[in-house]
Amino acid sequence: MTDRLTNGYVSILHGAGYVGRELITVLAHHPALSLGEIVSRSHAGDPISKAHPHLRGVVEGAFVDRLTDLSVDAVIVAAEHGQGVAAVQKLLETGYEGVIIDMSADFRIHDPALLKTYYGWDHPAPALLDEFVYGLPEVYAPYPSGTKFIANPGCFATGIALALAPLAEHLDITRVSVTALTGASGSGARPKSTTHFPDREGNVRAYSVLTHRHLAEVAMVTGATPTFVPASGPWTRGIWGTAVANLPAGFGPEQVRTWFEEAYAACPLIRLWPDELPELKPVAGTPFCDIGWTVHAGHLVVGFAIDNLLKGAASQAVQNLNLLLGLPETAGLLPSAITQATSLA
Amino acid sequence: MTDRLTNGYVSILHGAGYVGRELITVLAHHPALSLGEIVSRSHAGDPISKAHPHLRGVVEGAFVDRLTDLSVDAVIVAAEHGQGVAAVQKLLETGYEGVIIDMSADFRIHDPALLKTYYGWDHPAPALLDEFVYGLPEVYAPYPSGTKFIANPGCFATGIALALAPLAEHLDITRVSVTALTGASGSGARPKSTTHFPDREGNVRAYSVLTHRHLAEVAMVTGATPTFVPASGPWTRGIWGTAVANLPAGFGPEQVRTWFEEAYAACPLIRLWPDELPELKPVAGTPFCDIGWTVHAGHLVVGFAIDNLLKGAASQAVQNLNLLLGLPETAGLLPSAITQATSLA
Amino acid sequence: MTDRLTNGYVSILHGAGYVGRELITVLAHHPALSLGEIVSRSHAGDPISKAHPHLRGVVEGAFVDRLTDLSVDAVIVAAEHGQGVAAVQKLLETGYEGVIIDMSADFRIHDPALLKTYYGWDHPAPALLDEFVYGLPEVYAPYPSGTKFIANPGCFATGIALALAPLAEHLDITRVSVTALTGASGSGARPKSTTHFPDREGNVRAYSVLTHRHLAEVAMVTGATPTFVPASGPWTRGIWGTAVANLPAGFGPEQVRTWFEEAYAACPLIRLWPDELPELKPVAGTPFCDIGWTVHAGHLVVGFAIDNLLKGAASQAVQNLNLLLGLPETAGLLPSAITQATSLA
Amino acid sequence: MTDRLTNGYVSILHGAGYVGRELITVLAHHPALSLGEIVSRSHAGDPISKAHPHLRGVVEGAFVDRLTDLSVDAVIVAAEHGQGVAAVQKLLETGYEGVIIDMSADFRIHDPALLKTYYGWDHPAPALLDEFVYGLPEVYAPYPSGTKFIANPGCFATGIALALAPLAEHLDITRVSVTALTGASGSGARPKSTTHFPDREGNVRAYSVLTHRHLAEVAMVTGATPTFVPASGPWTRGIWGTAVANLPAGFGPEQVRTWFEEAYAACPLIRLWPDELPELKPVAGTPFCDIGWTVHAGHLVVGFAIDNLLKGAASQAVQNLNLLLGLPETAGLLPSAITQATSLA
Repeated sequence: MTDRLTNGYVSILHGAGYVGRELITVLAHHPALSLGEIVSRSHAGDPISKAHPHLRGVVEGAFVDRLTDLSVDAVIVAAEHGQGVAAVQKLLETGYEGVIIDMSADFRIHDPALLKTYYGWDHPAPALLDEFVYGLPEVYAPYPSGTKFIANPGCFATGIALALAPLAEHLDITRVSVTALTGASGSGARPKSTTHFPDREGNVRAYSVLTHRHLAEVAMVTGATPTFVPASGPWTRGIWGTAVANLPAGFGPEQVRTWFEEAYAACPLIRLWPDELPELKPVAGTPFCDIGWTVHAGHLVVGFAIDNLLKGAASQAVQNLNLLLGLPETAGLLPSAITQATSLA
Repeated sequence: MTDRLTNGYVSILHGAGYVGRELITVLAHHPALSLGEIVSRSHAGDPISKAHPHLRGVVEGAFVDRLTDLSVDAVIVAAEHGQGVAAVQKLLETGYEGVIIDMSADFRIHDPALLKTYYGWDHPAPALLDEFVYGLPEVYAPYPSGTKFIANPGCFATGIALALAPLAEHLDITRVSVTALTGASGSGARPKSTTHFPDREGNVRAYSVLTHRHLAEVAMVTGATPTFVPASGPWTRGIWGTAVANLPAGFGPEQVRTWFEEAYAACPLIRLWPDELPELKPVAGTPFCDIGWTVHAGHLVVGFAIDNLLKGAASQAVQNLNLLLGLPETAGLLPSAITQATSLA
Repeated sequence: MTDRLTNGYVSILHGAGYVGRELITVLAHHPALSLGEIVSRSHAGDPISKAHPHLRGVVEGAFVDRLTDLSVDAVIVAAEHGQGVAAVQKLLETGYEGVIIDMSADFRIHDPALLKTYYGWDHPAPALLDEFVYGLPEVYAPYPSGTKFIANPGCFATGIALALAPLAEHLDITRVSVTALTGASGSGARPKSTTHFPDREGNVRAYSVLTHRHLAEVAMVTGATPTFVPASGPWTRGIWGTAVANLPAGFGPEQVRTWFEEAYAACPLIRLWPDELPELKPVAGTPFCDIGWTVHAGHLVVGFAIDNLLKGAASQAVQNLNLLLGLPETAGLLPSAITQATSLA
Repeated sequence: MTDRLTNGYVSILHGAGYVGRELITVLAHHPALSLGEIVSRSHAGDPISKAHPHLRGVVEGAFVDRLTDLSVDAVIVAAEHGQGVAAVQKLLETGYEGVIIDMSADFRIHDPALLKTYYGWDHPAPALLDEFVYGLPEVYAPYPSGTKFIANPGCFATGIALALAPLAEHLDITRVSVTALTGASGSGARPKSTTHFPDREGNVRAYSVLTHRHLAEVAMVTGATPTFVPASGPWTRGIWGTAVANLPAGFGPEQVRTWFEEAYAACPLIRLWPDELPELKPVAGTPFCDIGWTVHAGHLVVGFAIDNLLKGAASQAVQNLNLLLGLPETAGLLPSAITQATSLA
């Protein structure tokens, strides 16, 4: 163990994928949390830096094939969709009593109708489902006292829901048109034809057009469903999207600015760009969601950008952990204080 | 001169940029047209392959500083926007009497209101403007007999107009939401901050949101103006976009298919992808416009893709040249016959 | 069948990969050769444009599961390494009597010692081996009269051998140090971890350091073996490399220039860049091998660049076909005459 | 000012470029150092996050047009080459008495012959030159007591010198052949033709072949000059290179391993990869220099990789600062302790 002061130990299940890699990286640099066990059945026994070579010299130790230490303060389940329920059930059966952050989609949607429409699924563990809170902190935090289980939001869902939530009471979300593009890391660490370099480089490809499952989360947050064209783009990290809406008569840029500034006044991980759309690259590698907008001739375009592996997955999980464990919301994500570049004089 | 049979010589003004490069490349391989003079004031005297090194061994000769041979059959003016009028006027003053294809925006828009809205411009040569035909062949060809001057369409305009033209009589285009992304070659051969590799790679950036000038062309072709969010993406060649619309009650995928198939039945350079959206890469390097669509729950998404330097510029110019000179529409753009892979038996 | 005049029909075995794709593309545009059957067991029955979507509208017909028409003039075997022998044997057993171009490594190396060292292989069909000529035209053409079978060279081997062949009688090749990087298309169309976009983009990776099999071909051409560090780079098409040597006392840039100019005086697909090293991109998409050099303080650096799928595979195969069938060497690869941009006057 | 404990304030001259950006980023997260003034004449008055948008929400304050607070503990001069001398002279004239890290090449080379050969320069301030120590910590630290001025090494020089230094007493460095490729961020933040996206993407280009100025630094560190072919590659961050040498008779992989392990036993920012060459991407974004090697048939290939903006510039500057200010060498660069992923039990 390190000799630093720690407010908690965090173990990770399914730690050999890209989300696992980012979780380990963030937690290794966290000032108040320490890494517990990193589980990966397929990589058990391998040094962690074999699957994650950029962590050589930063993180030591090896993957283990199952959790043996149930005394940790939190477990993050980075399983693929459909495997979260079983992983969580097993964890509880073994007697684990701490915090759980589930990265899969399995505990996000509570509405049976949405589950049916988007997942074709009757939830296999509805009682457990009720104990999970949907972990979009800018909309739902502070979480109810006693919350121990968090369903971490999807990557597209995070960007779209944060872009639309402040508009939901002012506009008809069903008439909003969303387009968003994601990088190749969103498809995970396993090679596929859609991430084969010669076919991904220089290419854009739409998929799950109008039917993407993350729409269920957007519907849950905003109460309605926009159209959504998801696509994949030729880069590794980040989601960039736009939402186009008609602005009701009488509303202009000032109202839009007020809506967003009021919604996110207390949110250190939202950056607003009034009257311009955010670019993708400045948000890559950061825990922020950038949101900007333009108004012209009665139309409103809202742009949003996140790092799909961070605000769309790992940093949002740590943000949620911080909130559940009583730490500052941005601990491990931003410097302990906003740096002020200035003179001493 | 080459010893091949030629149906005409074509000279190029402003031949040192990316559009010039593509024009030279296409014409060098054209079975029935030959290259005349390649003019570039800034590169005059340089071998053509100095500015266009991939053409070494394919095209010989040097850039000249002005057109000296007025007997050619066609001149393509690859000037930047705003310089087309002066270039064409000068060409006519010197006594040139052949075909002109202007690549700039200067002769595209005839409606003074659109010119005012999108360009802030009273056209400086309205009489000349009337002699130009807007060169979107799939919509406007065959051109009126005697047409000698073509205003070659803009790149975004080509993709959007071809995607929307078949819908214009069935849907309210003003409620269609278009998003499209273009590669870095669309910004030309001169380095700029928006094409600086470290800032372009891994980045997406919106610009001219809701106000892009190519909307004037779309309005001219379809009679109405959609919303349009243009953006730049991290690749070199190609435009990829989508148009999202509500489908009126009673219409489904069959009608949409009929609309597109009827509109483009005789168009060899349109490729339709029913019930899927086209990808970008299969159209890069080709003279095609790919169009596909998806219908779901009353919404229609139309996807389109072109190579911005080819169907969005150079190959469309040659397509127009072919039509004006009485050659097959696809001469120099496709093999002389569709190749049939099969047995001899 | 097309109605164009044809000097021959060419069928392709294993036509669904990247080399197959390029062969089909080149042959579809060839002025004197026509496509016969395109065989792919795994894609049999699929339209050719399903595996090769950029060819929609250019090539029609479907993949077949085996060659049925043995009357074609040539068959190109685009099998993977190790499968060439069996494919050729089967072809001959069925009674095929035409030209064969084998793209695999199986018939390239005739020296049993090199075969043993680099492939660990006793050749399974040595009699057949003797009938194959190594198809590096700039070194070995004109081929012996009656040549019907060509072993098409490897991609790295093509670049390195062409860069070193003119030096072999002047320098000690065993003391030359070669480094070369290849794009992801060199790994083929099947997704692998080394071509997974998030791991390939922004990455460089060495492999087969000092032991790459293409050294056997270089040794065969130059009579000696340089050191060779192969690596993969983050792009799709092209090989770029350098060879560093000591220049014997008394030799300078003029001698080097003479060596290359004399070696390649009659080679239309070699482009020489005296006193500068070629860049990669101007050769991508072309059938050329670019070679340049720099001399400083007794050291010589030779640079070379090819498109790995063209001069490193498909266009070299067609170049070889042209030579065997008595067509101009560059038919289908360059315009029928070098275009001279000039005036008519 | 922040309320965190600080062991020093650090100001930056020329803070609007890429190296400035990385310096600000590293220092903003440093546990023991705080940012002082960020100077940029061209951006004075602008928020720092305007030039460096990814720092919005992390660093506040604006660029200033000159240093006003001379009480800071260190100043990093991120001027371009040739501007370092004047910047340092001015700083001293104003009475500044603290530590200086100069990022330019101006104070690196002390040998007049090397300066003449590689820079064509008689040093304008030889007395000042003598006060600067060349800041390659793995070779030269601990620095002489009282050292206050550091010349921070060049990016290529860092990688090559660290790869060759352990070999210098065993091999003839003049017969070593080095090839290395750098990303586009190495060319700085100003757009140039060599970093224009359409010409950089998919391209590799050699430059300063056999004459690159960083050879002067390599010669200073190793006592001899290898051949060096520098090239630029299509990525943003990182340098990847190889050095090829003949291994004297009697030496094998074990000796090579011993040489490197002994040389860098106490170096936390060197990662060794015995018997394999490091890849580029795992080092991008990290402060490490990765070094690996392969031995075959009497030849040794050493591979090296660094992030050109970090170990090749900004993180090495902070590493040097840490050493001069008595902080742990890796403060602000690695977590305070190596994280051990393990169980509590």
